[in-house]
This record gives sequence, C-alpha cells and structure tokens, in this order.
Amino acid sequence: MDDVYGRQTTILIEDVWAGSGEVDIFIASDGSIGDTGPGIGKRYRSSAEFTIDGSRKVALPGLVNTHTHAAMTLLRGFADDMPLQDWLTEKIWPLEAHLTGEDVYWGTKLGCLEMIRTGTTAFNDMYFYMEDAARAVDETGIRANLAYGFIDLFSPEKREAEIAATEKLVKTIRSMNNPRIRPSVGPHAVYTVSQEGLCWLAGFAREEDTGIHVHLSETEKEVNDAVSQWNRRPSAVLDEAGLLTGRTVAAHCCWLDRDECMLLGKRGVSVSHNPVSNMKLATNRAMPYHWLKEAGANLSFGTDGCASNNNLDLFEEMKTGAILQKFFWNSQTLLPAGEALSMATAGGARALGLDSGMLEKGRPADIILLDRDIVCNTPFHNLDSNIVYSCSGSAVDTTICDGRVLMKERVIPGEETIIREAARAARQLVERAESGS
Amino acid sequence: MDDVYGRQTTILIEDVWAGSGEVDIFIASDGSIGDTGPGIGKRYRSSAEFTIDGSRKVALPGLVNTHTHAAMTLLRGFADDMPLQDWLTEKIWPLEAHLTGEDVYWGTKLGCLEMIRTGTTAFNDMYFYMEDAARAVDETGIRANLAYGFIDLFSPEKREAEIAATEKLVKTIRSMNNPRIRPSVGPHAVYTVSQEGLCWLAGFAREEDTGIHVHLSETEKEVNDAVSQWNRRPSAVLDEAGLLTGRTVAAHCCWLDRDECMLLGKRGVSVSHNPVSNMKLATNRAMPYHWLKEAGANLSFGTDGCASNNNLDLFEEMKTGAILQKFFWNSQTLLPAGEALSMATAGGARALGLDSGMLEKGRPADIILLDRDIVCNTPFHNLDSNIVYSCSGSAVDTTICDGRVLMKERVIPGEETIIREAARAARQLVERAESGS
Repeated sequence: MDDVYGRQTTILIEDVWAGSGEVDIFIASDGSIGDTGPGIGKRYRSSAEFTIDGSRKVALPGLVNTHTHAAMTLLRGFADDMPLQDWLTEKIWPLEAHLTGEDVYWGTKLGCLEMIRTGTTAFNDMYFYMEDAARAVDETGIRANLAYGFIDLFSPEKREAEIAATEKLVKTIRSMNNPRIRPSVGPHAVYTVSQEGLCWLAGFAREEDTGIHVHLSETEKEVNDAVSQWNRRPSAVLDEAGLLTGRTVAAHCCWLDRDECMLLGKRGVSVSHNPVSNMKLATNRAMPYHWLKEAGANLSFGTDGCASNNNLDLFEEMKTGAILQKFFWNSQTLLPAGEALSMATAGGARALGLDSGMLEKGRPADIILLDRDIVCNTPFHNLDSNIVYSCSGSAVDTTICDGRVLMKERVIPGEETIIREAARAARQLVERAESGS
Repeated sequence: MDDVYGRQTTILIEDVWAGSGEVDIFIASDGSIGDTGPGIGKRYRSSAEFTIDGSRKVALPGLVNTHTHAAMTLLRGFADDMPLQDWLTEKIWPLEAHLTGEDVYWGTKLGCLEMIRTGTTAFNDMYFYMEDAARAVDETGIRANLAYGFIDLFSPEKREAEIAATEKLVKTIRSMNNPRIRPSVGPHAVYTVSQEGLCWLAGFAREEDTGIHVHLSETEKEVNDAVSQWNRRPSAVLDEAGLLTGRTVAAHCCWLDRDECMLLGKRGVSVSHNPVSNMKLATNRAMPYHWLKEAGANLSFGTDGCASNNNLDLFEEMKTGAILQKFFWNSQTLLPAGEALSMATAGGARALGLDSGMLEKGRPADIILLDRDIVCNTPFHNLDSNIVYSCSGSAVDTTICDGRVLMKERVIPGEETIIREAARAARQLVERAESGS
C-alpha cells in the first residue's frame, strides 16, 4: 500500500460517511471524483487500483486556507506577546531580512506538511522568494495560489523592482506547467503600496488572468491613516485601482464599515476571515460576518502566518471564527457550524478559483478522511458541530489532493526530513540574525 | 511494558526537556516526584522498575481543568448555535431530565478519557449523579474535586433535597478513601440558590473542609438581575453567605467590576477562566484578567461542559484565553504564553488545593510528556509559545497521574470500550428523550 502515495491512480473509498449518510467515492485516474453515491462502489471494485475502507470514517472536501504566509512557520514562537510595532521592527522584520530562498523553501515545506496533516489541500500564499515556495508546493502535492508580496513603500525605484519580481514569479509558475500551482498578484496593503503600484497590479492581473491577494482593513490605524491621508477608506483606495474583483481575496477585513461590505459584495470579492491572528494581534474588532453575508461577499477562512497564529490548523480557525463572531457581535446564533464548514471548503475553493470544495462527481478529488471512533467525534449527534466545535486537525487520518494520497493513516512520507531540515533552517536563520551576518 | 499502566511503581524519565533544559525525573513508589535534575538519572537507573526515554520529549506538569461538567460529553454536538434560552429550555434541560446515573458514569468516563488524552490530570466537576461520576474517576486514574450542583430555586422543600444530596456525596467520597477524589460543595449560582442554601453550603464546606465550586457573573443578565433584586452584585451575595474563601473556585467571572476583583483577591478566591464557552455563548465580555491579577486572585482555566465548548482540551483553552484577553482588552501584551501555561498548571493545582502543578521534588508526579519532533513544536524557538499558541492536546504522548501511567505513546487501555459505551449511552439518551419515556 506504500506505493499509493503521490501517484495518479484510481481509488475506491467504500462506505464512508459524507454529509448525512454513507456513500462510496470513486477517484478516477485524472484526479477527479469519477463517481459518488450510496452503493456505487460495486461498479468500480474490480477496476480501482486501491481501496480504502471508509466504514469508520467521515469524508469532507479538503479545507482551503485563503490567507497565509506558509514559510513563516520558521518564525513560529520566535516572538509573541509584544506591542505590534516593537514586535515587527525589533523581531520579525530583522529576522526576515536574513531569510534566503532556501529558508523559504524549507519553511514552505513545513507549512505544506502541517496543512496536509490538518486536512488542508489548497492555500493562498503571499511572501517572497516565491519561486522557492513554488518548488516546495510542487514537491509536497498540495495546491496553492502563490503571490509575491508587492511592497513599494511609495518609491518609484522600489516599484520597478517589485514589478519585475511579480512578473518573474508569474512567468516561473507558468513555466512549471503544474495545474496545482497558480500565480496571483500580491498588493500587500494600501499603506505599503503606491496608487501607481496598485493600478499596475490590477492591470497585470487582468491581462494575465491571475488572482489578487491583498490585506484589507486589518487594523483601525490602517483605516484612520487612509482616511486622513486620502480622505477615503481602504476599500475605496483598492476599488479605485481596480483591485476589487471576483478574483480578489481580501484578508482580515476587521474594520470594514457597512458600505464597504456592500461594495465588496457588489464586486464579488472573496473575504478571508483570520480570527486567531486578529485576536492575537489585538485588532479589537471582528470581521463583520453578518454584513458581508448580507452583501453576498464570498466568505472563507485563513490562518495568517505562523508568527501571528501560531499554527496552520483550519479546524481551529473554523471554531475560533464561529465563536468569535458570536462573542463580538453579541449573537448566540451568528456563524453556525454548517456555515463555518462551508466557508472552509466551498467558500475557500471559490476564493481561489478552484472547482473543489464539494464532494460531487466531476469535481477535483480533494478529499480528507477523519476518524469517527475517536473522542472528538463521540457521540455522533451532529457531524458539522463535531468538526467545527470539537475536533482539531489531529482528527484527520487521510489527505487526498488532486486524486493523489498525500497522507494515509496519519503517515506522510518524508515528514521526518522536512521537520529536521526546517528546524535546522530556523536555527541557522536566528544565528545569522544574531551575529548580524 | 504493557504492565506499566495504572500501577504504583517506580519510573525514571531520562533526558527530557523541562523548562529550559534537559533533566531526568525519578518517580517514587508513593506517586511523588522522588528526584529531578540534570543527570540525576544515573542514581536511579538500577532501582527504577520502568524507564522512559524522554530525549525527544518535553515534560510539563499535568494540566488542571478548574471548571467542567464532565458527563456533558454525552451532549457534545446535541445542540449549538441557538438563542441561550431556547437552547436550555428546548434542548439541554429536556435531555438532562432523562439522564441516569449510568449515563453520568459513561459520560464522565468519556470526559476522563478525553482529558487524559489531552494532558489534563485533575479537574473540578459539578453535575448530578456524582456518585457515579466518582466511580468513573476512580477507575480512570485521574484526580477530581467533585461537587453536586446545588439548585434549590428558592424553594425550601427543594433545598432540603439538595442538602441531602450534598451530604450524601461528601459521605460517599469520604468512604471511597481514594486520595485522588475529593468532595466539594457546588452552589450553582446566585440566581438558582436561595440565600439560606448559600449560607448552609458555606457552613457545611467549612465544617467538612471541602472546596466550593460556583458559577459567578457569567452573563450581564446575572449581574443586572442581582442588582435589581437584591441591590447587590453577585460577588457580594456570595460573600455575604461566606462563600468567597481560599477554597472557592469561581467559574467564568466575565462581568466582574474592578471592586469585585479586589474582593475576590482579598478573599483568596481562585477564578476559572472559560474563554471558549464564554465566546460560544456570546457573553460579550471577557474575564478582566488584568484586574484580577492586580488584585492577587489565583487564576486558572476551565473548559466548561461539552455542550458549550465542545471539547475538554485545555491546550485550546490556554490559547483561546491568551488571545481573547488581548483582543477584548485591546492589549497585544496581556496574558502572555508563560502566564497562560502557569494558569493551566500551578494556578489550577492551587485552585483545587493540590500540591501538583510544578515539576519539583516531593510534589505529586502528575506529569505529561509531549513530542518535540512534531510540527507544532518545530521550530523550537520558545517552548511556552509552542505549547500555548501552536500545539493542541494531540501533542501529548504520555500522561502520568499520581505516579501512575494512564497513557503511553498515545495508547490508553480500555479506550475503545469507553468510546463505544458512551456513544451507546448518548444514543439511547436521545431516544428516551424523543420518545418521552
């Protein structure tokens, strides 16, 4: 069975609980769900190369993380519990200044490993040395939309360099010709990118038909600064540049007002809710879920990077989001379990322009299996509730992406090497930063 | 090695990371930490009956859950995302009306199993059929302070029955003569217990030298009702009855004002912070950590019951508490990782009147081991941060309570039976409630 890993093959999952009953799922050799339904397995039993007994398991669409900086796993625990400006200027940025492409490669590998282990099959990333991140994604078998974090700090010279870096990444990813990996553009935020930079990115994304990945209204300061500088809230600044589109993922959105929510809904923007990071960094306001839902914006979850979370477990994000919304907006019924699960699956897939996110015939076979006979699924009164409120990513037993098995019975080939090499890279990074070399 | 489970024996844990370096820990046959320090292992290597290789592990004091209703695991996922009153009156209370002692036994067993699995070695419980809960605790090897939830609803007749139930539980637990299990009294809350009931409980707890376990200022309504009815805030009502003592654990405390915090500090009360439950039930205000800390109150964590959490994982509670405090009180530095870990260990032990909570010679050997070479501990920049912000209870590999091994390499003898029987009990409970029998 070892040779099932990473292969394009045919797989039959029998008698697995999905939604509200037991079904069989047949994964075709093109990586799609070839068929699914109660009792359909007998048609494929002779032709499927591998069979998985799903009888004590639950199947879900692979989760989708719509905002992260995967390589920041290397910074996990490096600095916490500090005032935001000190944390950034004394700890995070000085360490990042010493990052190499090889660090980003191992950090992204560690991030992919963590996501596979906790049931995430696709993610939306923004960082630098992204060609190295692409290599890591290619090797680990997960899906990703990758953006170079464009920061021109309102300098024309810096802008040229960022344009070149953005163009290079798109070209590199196109040349990899791996359908699991797609380029996005990454305008960092309105307070770090000039209007010229924002406009160029909007035009380039349109020409190249790429996604757009941007931070939006994370802090009150961001909003206040935009209003005092340009007399416009951040959403209006992005909209003026043409960056609010159906291919845009806006991360955080804590401080949107109701009109901005309506604007995002009208433009078809996807919003990435990052409750853990927002709480840890004390943003002091939760994304207005009810207004965004009402406006028809597509909603999803992101973990943010490991410096501000400090893990990539979307199960935790679903729970934290579902309870933060209730707590902050003072409603015991806001963001129920089923909606949280839908955000992490169908909502996430839509945000990234993927057809996955639902277990239906013809869709990509991005599937995770969870154990049923474990504490977090006992009793089994309500599956959505157990998944969102009771289980963590440790309940995931098997992860399949694009029809290929990446984890089975919690075993991921090559895991030890990734953990060892990422730990080494992180240690050496800190040593370089401390010695100033 | 199988016969290490549950036995009073001698154990040597070698080369384990604890605090800021590697030590050996020798567990004596009386269940205490006989010795600990770097290199002390060689003195015990020949005499220790069992040896555990700790070289790629981290040792922590067992976590202490200072507020739960363990048997409510049976209600996990039964009802969520509803308005509080409907949730209680239409779902939770009708189901609880059908609970039997046998249900509470299996529910508590499932709760103990979940706590052992996620590194909790002692808990503070309040529910009913507590003699059956005591039996479950006795068998699973964990520590607990058990209180009968005293609710007289201001009726003298009901009060007599509650007094009898309270007396019976204390007598039963004393007769078990198991030092791991201790009785508490459980005045449910100021809105469910008469002043006469509160006073009787205070006197009885003093005479019997038991702990006191009470809900306090969970909701704004509780405070407003107390003020309008008695012209006093809930803390004053409890204090007048003599229930604020150094043996008291007050759960929730979301809506305390600053004077109440000072009062609790002055009385030496222990406070149980239950952030997940508070968020899920939309209490809309976070326990004022900074005021309670300033007042010198002893601080700890509780998960609350599974109907409002929906798990018993204290790692999740530490993280949620640490980030909720920052978010709600608008401070990036409030409740740092080290303080959260201390609340869940030393603070919890002190709340329950236990000597555990620190890995020191002479203290009870309530010890958990976590893997170092797993994703949530990679990189290893900062152990406290990894434990609080990155790991979940699934990182726990070994759980030792009172010097006895309850879980080793994630294996707990009898786990399958508990899961099967608890699932059956939950299913039959719902069937009884639905058929009205």
